[in-house]
Amino acid sequence: MKVGIIGLGLIGGSMAVDLKRRGFAREILGVEAEPVNAAAAEKIGLVDRIVSYDECVAESDIVVISVPVGAAVRMLPDVLDRFHEEEKAGKCERVVMDVCSTKEQLERSVKYHPMRRNYVASHPMAGTEYSGPWAAMPGLFDGHACIICDSQESSPKAVRKVEELYNTLNMRTIYMNSSNHDVHTAYISHISHVTSFALALTVLEKEKDEKHIFDLASGGFSSTVRLAKSSPDMWTPILTQNRDNVLHVMDTYIEKMNEFRKAIADSDEDEIRHLIEESNRIRRIIR
Amino acid sequence: MKVGIIGLGLIGGSMAVDLKRRGFAREILGVEAEPVNAAAAEKIGLVDRIVSYDECVAESDIVVISVPVGAAVRMLPDVLDRFHEEEKAGKCERVVMDVCSTKEQLERSVKYHPMRRNYVASHPMAGTEYSGPWAAMPGLFDGHACIICDSQESSPKAVRKVEELYNTLNMRTIYMNSSNHDVHTAYISHISHVTSFALALTVLEKEKDEKHIFDLASGGFSSTVRLAKSSPDMWTPILTQNRDNVLHVMDTYIEKMNEFRKAIADSDEDEIRHLIEESNRIRRIIR
Repeated sequence: MKVGIIGLGLIGGSMAVDLKRRGFAREILGVEAEPVNAAAAEKIGLVDRIVSYDECVAESDIVVISVPVGAAVRMLPDVLDRFHEEEKAGKCERVVMDVCSTKEQLERSVKYHPMRRNYVASHPMAGTEYSGPWAAMPGLFDGHACIICDSQESSPKAVRKVEELYNTLNMRTIYMNSSNHDVHTAYISHISHVTSFALALTVLEKEKDEKHIFDLASGGFSSTVRLAKSSPDMWTPILTQNRDNVLHVMDTYIEKMNEFRKAIADSDEDEIRHLIEESNRIRRIIR
Repeated sequence: MKVGIIGLGLIGGSMAVDLKRRGFAREILGVEAEPVNAAAAEKIGLVDRIVSYDECVAESDIVVISVPVGAAVRMLPDVLDRFHEEEKAGKCERVVMDVCSTKEQLERSVKYHPMRRNYVASHPMAGTEYSGPWAAMPGLFDGHACIICDSQESSPKAVRKVEELYNTLNMRTIYMNSSNHDVHTAYISHISHVTSFALALTVLEKEKDEKHIFDLASGGFSSTVRLAKSSPDMWTPILTQNRDNVLHVMDTYIEKMNEFRKAIADSDEDEIRHLIEESNRIRRIIR
């Protein structure tokens, strides 16, 4: 199988490595808009060939869109348009998939496209706070969950191909519609990023002397603030595309912070203890 | 040297292991109010002997108070009172130290005590989100920072003993007065815990179906919410004792959250990007 990957960052690059190494792809074609990243991806050996977007879409059995979701929303209909052109000359069974963190707007962008069934929406829930081809690594996806969205809108054959791809990456697949996907990821992933960004901003503003942060940062602070290193290219469109869900969960979060604030301001030890005990219930779920 | 450790949890227990293993302590005496924990500490072999509080304070060359700071504030003056009784019969050169996360109230509790110079205030900045003797582990402190507070109030000999103890634990010592300590730890440690508690509460409230949290939690969420597993016994008194500093930093944090909220509500991509880029500056400091 020939796999074309558009966007050779952390996710695209890590997919490239394992799909080739584990024999799912005979050849990996890579597209990368940033010349420095393209050169790096080729040098590191993430892909077999760096090709143009046109070549990639024309040649690949599976096209993987792994660019920030703002760009993906424009790219996905274009790929399906090209498949449509091809279909006129004879059946096109090639597949396009994306790996973006928000799904509803993507779904909406191609909902009535005549080639909608050649598209599979997916979100592999793995990553690190680093980005670019340098951040790519083998085994990144192993054991994590992957959400496939609105699979009834895709042809069973296309879904099977994408499932095989994720099996190769050792991911557990979960099925959900794109609207539920965006609600759950707002709660479980997007809010974590916002809280980390806000924490970094707070500490950087308060601790003008960075030496203190460096000296005093314990493992706890580092792990809580880790996501604040995440890329603005990736996260700006996620937060705008999932705006309503993110705002909703931020409101609950700010409410909880204010409950804590009140308990501390009142020196109400019983209430502080109660809130901490409640939050400890997360132990049962997260190891 | 005979080291007496009062409170055999994560910190006290981990100290016991390394101080004995690395030859700093000839004998470790342990005091533990919770019978189950005391039995476990003895069984795991954290200490040489479980003794009563009276015996521990009477026999140890260094008494380490490693109980939650609410209890420590009552215990510290009592230990110094006992040293004072002893002093009347002849010079007492024994040392008491604490390992608590807030320092100002402890300092205030013994500021004018005639035996103040036998006390060394310290805060080893290491730990995990787990507690109890089961959580104790060798090497917990290696490479982390330890703050010694108000060292000019302690006798140089007492400070040297405590420095040797922390050298044995491979910690870097930093010196600070207790009031600055409490300001910096509010910014760098305490707020991280509050944000994690609030995050856990938010997600637990919103995701009634815990299966979803379990399925969808990625590494990012787990690391951000990790501190929400922390013990209420430890954290309730920290948050009340460091009330003013914690409230101050929470207010800044809530302000930052509201800035983010506004940028997202306005779909202002430039502002969202700007806030993320600002928060990315943490990369320079935290690896």
